[in-house]
Amino acid sequence: MSHEKNQELIKKLHECAAACNHCFDACLKEEDVKMMAECIRLDRECADICSYLEHALARNTPFASELASVCAKICEACGNECKKHDHEHCQKCADACFKCAEACKSVA
Amino acid sequence: MSHEKNQELIKKLHECAAACNHCFDACLKEEDVKMMAECIRLDRECADICSYLEHALARNTPFASELASVCAKICEACGNECKKHDHEHCQKCADACFKCAEACKSVA
Amino acid sequence: MSHEKNQELIKKLHECAAACNHCFDACLKEEDVKMMAECIRLDRECADICSYLEHALARNTPFASELASVCAKICEACGNECKKHDHEHCQKCADACFKCAEACKSVA
Amino acid sequence: MSHEKNQELIKKLHECAAACNHCFDACLKEEDVKMMAECIRLDRECADICSYLEHALARNTPFASELASVCAKICEACGNECKKHDHEHCQKCADACFKCAEACKSVA
Repeated sequence: MSHEKNQELIKKLHECAAACNHCFDACLKEEDVKMMAECIRLDRECADICSYLEHALARNTPFASELASVCAKICEACGNECKKHDHEHCQKCADACFKCAEACKSVA
Repeated sequence: MSHEKNQELIKKLHECAAACNHCFDACLKEEDVKMMAECIRLDRECADICSYLEHALARNTPFASELASVCAKICEACGNECKKHDHEHCQKCADACFKCAEACKSVA
Repeated sequence: MSHEKNQELIKKLHECAAACNHCFDACLKEEDVKMMAECIRLDRECADICSYLEHALARNTPFASELASVCAKICEACGNECKKHDHEHCQKCADACFKCAEACKSVA
Repeated sequence: MSHEKNQELIKKLHECAAACNHCFDACLKEEDVKMMAECIRLDRECADICSYLEHALARNTPFASELASVCAKICEACGNECKKHDHEHCQKCADACFKCAEACKSVA
């Protein structure tokens, strides 16, 4: 799987990491932060692994498939948590997570 | 500045990152999460830059001084926020942050 | 500096990290790897700090200015090294590094 | 799996990341860099995933098992490559990688 071939997955990972980091920031500013605690936690996990995989793919890591498999699970867990909350940042984040999970699975 | 000479700073960075990550986790489990929002945010920033610098030093980065200077500022900001809170994890984190800031400054 | 306002810098950081990671991979496959040793080293440093800052900006880090200042220096060092080599991946990487350094300076 | 229980794995991850980063630096300074190209590549992958997992464990990530499973594979691949080379940094790195892979497997 070459750098060039991975462009679609790299794009989804990038969008997912950005959405998760934005959601992390927005959750910390919400009125009821306690309700968002699990979202905050998973936003960080998901942003970090997506960012990690994005850059590992760009350097042609030999472990793309194994990392994409873990990343898909983390994206799904984060998407499922975000989906529970009505905030626009959570709904957008859930959407980015599920799209990224699909892209990861196609590589895993 | 060689890998060997940096062992003391590497140790402080490692302890600070661990304390910040532990504090991040513990803050998210507190009764009043809203009060901890800034602590949660800074714990993440501080853990991430300390971890970054720790491993950059281990690979003999040419940018040790510049990175240590930024790291010192982030450690101080996190320590100042943590110090405000009575939770044991916050007090321990503040202590680790201030010690790491000192170690960073001696290199910066 | 909000998440929205940073889109231009985030884009440059993303392009620079991708170029550096691609150059890292390509340098390791060159016939004369020894000549590329410093390029390989700086590609890693530059990719990692750009990726770090990109995602720190996405989560609205309070340390955007300090981190951008360090990042500008690392991008310039990597760009100066890459510029010495005629390989297309090095020339493209140098270009991305210099553009990113400029974007970083406008924020620092 | 709590932060406290993971101390042994965290220690192995830390030692492995440090050994890989040191080996990365040392390989780039070897006379025959071309022979070390795959070692340089895998040192980076292994250092980065070990550092990632170390800090994810410190913040009590819900994905410890999945991440440890990937990390074990990357550590083994890096250890197998390093073992081929007689340099002391490579032999030490191989040793740290295999110990870390074992610790990862006990959690995965």
